[in-house]
Order: sequence, then C-alpha cells, then structure tokens
Amino acid sequence: MSHHIYLDHQATTPLDSQVLDKMMPFLTTRFANASSAHELGVENSAVVESSRRKIAKTIGAKSKEIIFTSGATESNNLAILGLADTKEKGKIITVKTEHKCVLESCVKLRSAGFEIVYLDVDRHGFIDLKQLEKELSSDTILVSIMYGNNETGVLQPLRAASELTKKYGVPLHCDATQSIGLLELDVEELGVDMLTFSSHKIYGPKGVGALYVKRSIKLSPLIHGGQQEKGIRSGTYNLAGIVGLEAALSLSKQKQESEYVRLKQLRATFLDKVNGLNYICNTPLEDSLPHCLSLSLPGVNMQKMLPRLKRTVLSTGSACNSADQKESHVLIAMGLGRDLANSTIRISFGRSSTLEDVKISAEEIINAARKSMAGAVNEKS
Amino acid sequence: MSHHIYLDHQATTPLDSQVLDKMMPFLTTRFANASSAHELGVENSAVVESSRRKIAKTIGAKSKEIIFTSGATESNNLAILGLADTKEKGKIITVKTEHKCVLESCVKLRSAGFEIVYLDVDRHGFIDLKQLEKELSSDTILVSIMYGNNETGVLQPLRAASELTKKYGVPLHCDATQSIGLLELDVEELGVDMLTFSSHKIYGPKGVGALYVKRSIKLSPLIHGGQQEKGIRSGTYNLAGIVGLEAALSLSKQKQESEYVRLKQLRATFLDKVNGLNYICNTPLEDSLPHCLSLSLPGVNMQKMLPRLKRTVLSTGSACNSADQKESHVLIAMGLGRDLANSTIRISFGRSSTLEDVKISAEEIINAARKSMAGAVNEKS
Repeated sequence: MSHHIYLDHQATTPLDSQVLDKMMPFLTTRFANASSAHELGVENSAVVESSRRKIAKTIGAKSKEIIFTSGATESNNLAILGLADTKEKGKIITVKTEHKCVLESCVKLRSAGFEIVYLDVDRHGFIDLKQLEKELSSDTILVSIMYGNNETGVLQPLRAASELTKKYGVPLHCDATQSIGLLELDVEELGVDMLTFSSHKIYGPKGVGALYVKRSIKLSPLIHGGQQEKGIRSGTYNLAGIVGLEAALSLSKQKQESEYVRLKQLRATFLDKVNGLNYICNTPLEDSLPHCLSLSLPGVNMQKMLPRLKRTVLSTGSACNSADQKESHVLIAMGLGRDLANSTIRISFGRSSTLEDVKISAEEIINAARKSMAGAVNEKS
Repeated sequence: MSHHIYLDHQATTPLDSQVLDKMMPFLTTRFANASSAHELGVENSAVVESSRRKIAKTIGAKSKEIIFTSGATESNNLAILGLADTKEKGKIITVKTEHKCVLESCVKLRSAGFEIVYLDVDRHGFIDLKQLEKELSSDTILVSIMYGNNETGVLQPLRAASELTKKYGVPLHCDATQSIGLLELDVEELGVDMLTFSSHKIYGPKGVGALYVKRSIKLSPLIHGGQQEKGIRSGTYNLAGIVGLEAALSLSKQKQESEYVRLKQLRATFLDKVNGLNYICNTPLEDSLPHCLSLSLPGVNMQKMLPRLKRTVLSTGSACNSADQKESHVLIAMGLGRDLANSTIRISFGRSSTLEDVKISAEEIINAARKSMAGAVNEKS
C-alpha cells in the first residue's frame, strides 16, 4: 500500500520489521509451550519471564506486577471487572471520554449493582479535578482515567488525579494504550495502581497486551484455567506475541525522545498547511499526545469527503466506534453538537510519516474538504 | 532443536510454514485495523469475514456462529461463564476429566451460586451416559463435555450424549481443542450447541481460537468494548492470528485422513517397541485420538527418568497442570492411585514425527525407565 499515506496510527501501527525479526524464532523453531515442564518449555518460560522483567523495568514496575493479556481491551476489562469482582458493591469513577471497553465494563457493573460516576470533560477534553475530589468517597472502589485520549490525544492531569486518589485511598487505573512508547511512563511517578497497554499501538503485533497491577491490588481473573499469570490470566502463552510486545516497547523507548519532537513538528507543519481551511481543533496542542489531531470541519459532509481522499488514510473517529456508526461520544462529551461531531477527522502521524507525506495529505484534505461542503456544487473529485 | 524428538503435540504444535506464509502479509504490509472504516480497514475486515466463512464451513456451521477469541481457554470460559451470566441460577453438568479451564470456570460459578455436577469416568476415561441422563433435569442450563481428552486422548461418546441433551432441551458445549483437525467434526452431526477450538494445537499460531455458538444460544460477553464479534468479544482483531487459524484448519483438513492413519501407525509401532516395558496404557486405543498415548510406568521415578531423555521431548501431564506440580486430576478420576499417576508419561506424535524418530524415542524411553525404577541402583545414564 505504498501509494497510501497512512495517518491512522491511533487505530493501529505497522509491525516494525525489527520487532518481527525478534518474533520469528518463536513463530518457527522455538514453538514449545512455555508451561511445559520439559527442557524446551522451560527455555520458553525463561523467555516469558525475561520479557516480563524488561517490560516491568521500562515502566518502573516489578516483574510480578505485569500480567500478560490478549490486548488493551482485555486489560481494561480485567482491571475494572476483576477488581469489582473482589467487592460486593461500591462506586467506580471514570470519565465520559474513556475508550468503549472501559465504558462497557462499567455498564456491565452497573447492571450488577455498582454505582458508576462518569466525570465530565471541558471543551478541550480535560476532566475537572474538583469534580473528581467531590466524587471520591469512602465507598469508591476504583477510579479509571485514560492518559492520552484515543480520539483527540488530550492528556489528563494524571499526577494530580493520583494525588487525590491516594489521599482518599482509592486505587487508580489508567488506560495508557495510546501514550506508552510516546511519553515517559513510570507507574510510581504517575502514582497509578493499574496501567493498561498493548502492543499493536507501538509497532508490535496485534493480539497481545499487558496490565500492570500493583502488588497491593487484588484482582479476580476474567479467564480461568491452567493458572498461568498466578491464576489471574490463564491460557497458553502467546510467546511470539509477548516477545513482540517487549521488543516493540523497547524500540519505542529508544525512539521516544526523537519521535516525540519529530511527530510534534509534523503536526505543526500539517496545521500550517491547512491554515486556510475552516476547522475547529479538538486537540489541545500543548497537552496532548504529539502525533494526533482531531479536527472538526464545519459544514463538510464526510460521506462526500472521505471517498475523495485517494492517498490519505485517516479515520473519522475511533476504529472501535466504526461498527455502530454513531457520532463520537468523546466529542459529544466535549460539547460538540452532533453535526460538528459528524464532520470530524482524526489524523495520527507515525514512525513512517514523512514531511513530504504530511504536506501531500494536507493539500489533499483541503481540496477534499472544500469540495465536500454540504452546500457545495456536486463536482467530480 | 533439530536433535530433539518432539513428542508433545498435545501441549502445542509447531507453526506450519505454509500457515506462516499466509500470515506474513498481515504481519507486514496489511496491518490496518479491521474495524477501521477506511479502505484498508474494510479490506482487512473482508479478510476476517472470509476466514470466518471458511472456518464455519469446515465444521458445518454458519458464519455468524463463529466468535474469534484469544484461544481455547478463553473460548471455554466464554461458553460456560457467558451462558451462565444470562441465567440467575441452575445446574451445570461437566466431567471430572475436563481441562482445567472448564473446571475452574465451574468453580467460579459454584461460588456464584450455581450447582455443578461432575460426571465420573471409568477406568478408561469414559463417561457413563446413564449418569448423564440421571443428572439432566429441568434446571440444567448447560452440559460441557470434552471430545478428545488432552492427557489420554479418550474420545467421549459425544453423539450419544447430544441425543440425551437434546431430549432434555439442554445446550451442549464441547471442548474440541484436541480433536479438531484430526477427526471429522460437524456441529450438526455431533449435535453440539457450542464448540471450542484453537489454532496452536493444529499447527497454527498461539494466541487465537474460536467458539462456535449456535444461533439459538445467547451468551453474555466476558470482554466488553468496541462491539466486535456482535458485542460478544470486543477487542482489535488479531488479523494475522485469524488468518493463521483459518489456514491451519484448512491444512489440517487436507491432511486429516492420511495423518489419522499415519499417526495411528506410529503409535502402534511405538507400543510394539516398548513391549518389553512394564506399563499400563491409560489410552483406550480404539476410542481415542490417533496421536496420543498416556502410559503409566509402575515404580518409575519421573524425577530420575525425565533428565535421562536426551532427545525425546514429552510431558508427564498437561502443560497447564505443570505449574502446580500436582498429579493429574484426569488419571486420579480414572482411578489411578497417586503413585501411578505420578509415574505417567504423555506421548503425542505429530506431523513431523517420523517412524525412525518413534523407534529412537521408544528405545530411549525404555532405557530411561529401566534405569529410573524407584529401587534401581543409581547409575549414570
């Protein structure tokens, strides 16, 4: 797909060839089950544990605090449902703009008798720490706040939030799927008790993720069986996936500083180039992930615009919302009207994005948007 | 590990290079999120659906009846916990020799107030259909019976069981993880309402599996989120994994008839060769998976014997039981004493096993066993 300019890195990223190289032995000769007691199993178990150690170290955790899962959706479910399962009732505080897998886990718990409080966000997508403090109470069992949002990239004030949750003795879970590998993440420094991340957003393979669970936190498993992961997550180890997650995280950390600067520059260049376009920027540029941009284009009909993008690949919202075709709950929570929310594009740059590509895409987007105004004369693209 | 003779195919199988070839595009260029609405996402979504169609067809199901998961453990949990979640209470009938992931799901449900009945097995590992019929009652919500056992390979009388469950209107779930690809499996013909299978036992990748769910069966999701798989299993599609599962199943079906005969011959040859050894065969040769053999070696100390196997790679029980180092619950249920259960080896042949390898391993096993009798004089191997 070399003629495409892929600007949907928030949905998923290509698997880095260096990561694939590290995975290959485990997709070929080193196939033994890491739970087997024989020599080949023990060797592969050592690979699982060494991957776990390296991943833990990267985020300032201990080895035993890392649980491997099938991805961020499972990790978020495990954090929320697994913790709630150890309680009979209580209040869970989360945010209106969380990923669907957090929100849907909460819906499930509400039907089981838990109280769910959804924090509001302001026009830029930020939570209000005062509202969080007001809601924290002795029966609050968990707070779940995403770090970098998957649609707008807004970064929540996580350190300040964790000071509050600590003050009230409430565990804090953070979905860092979009942030890891781009920002410095240290669980101690952030003050989080659980942290979700996955591999395919950081140039690793799909189908694998992890949950950091602080030693003091007790979770029930979602998936029961052979007692892998200390019984918290049973199932045959996806060894190639785990090796891929570790390699992807390690590579992202190496590139983190330079990529942060480069991606932010690409974004600035893009905004420069689309300067003539009538847009509303939903991404707070100073407090956001460096690579993403949510732009509402008033009056632009997306059904007309998207087919006009011949090279640029982008989304109108999160991939996980595409199925139900509703307007983004994130943008609605930020106060955008339905029309504006439906006229929004999500652009996310990545490791392979070049300055040249960004300029080409900016131009293509301007042209496509102008030809797709609701009232525009229908002309050939 | 070319000098090894791998006889642990019930724990996991090597990824077939033809399957890996089919996966490679999705580990490199075709990386887009299959839930994305853009062209590249739609193309990948079509790959998911085409894989689903082919898999469904192989087992006589409809496309819509296949749910992709992260593996057999998750599929079994989803079948049992997902069905129970739609009920308030009731009885679940399963078998003492099921895989831990079935048994542990039942333990979880017992603590939630469900009644669990564990069917006995006889000396050969078979259930008693009369006991099943006796236990079937109007409050029975589910019966879960494995097809081919993961330790002994015994095949349960599934068709007869499904006639009974049909008669009482109770859904029947079957864990066919060990049987698929080796036996003809047609969900209509077997009369099952749910069927679990995974990829890594049939020369496909680890980290992916599926659950067949008959249209009439309603399940709650275990993992909530972006509404993939009609909301029953959310999470970004592991596209390479799904393609690998389909390719592995298709290849297994192609080889099924010839491999069935060949594996059964290898097993017969092996038994011929170890004829001089004092063993108890826990596998009923006429009613079992063709590739596996559970042999108890009275008086043999496994701690002494296993290190003596320099080339042969085998297990003493299921990989998923290795962590807790307890004797096999399968063999205990079959009436073996603890000593005998602890003196048992599980041998499973596979696609790469040659006649020559089998002969070499048989000889190595005889020698190692003889030198490892509890009372034997300690000599160098």
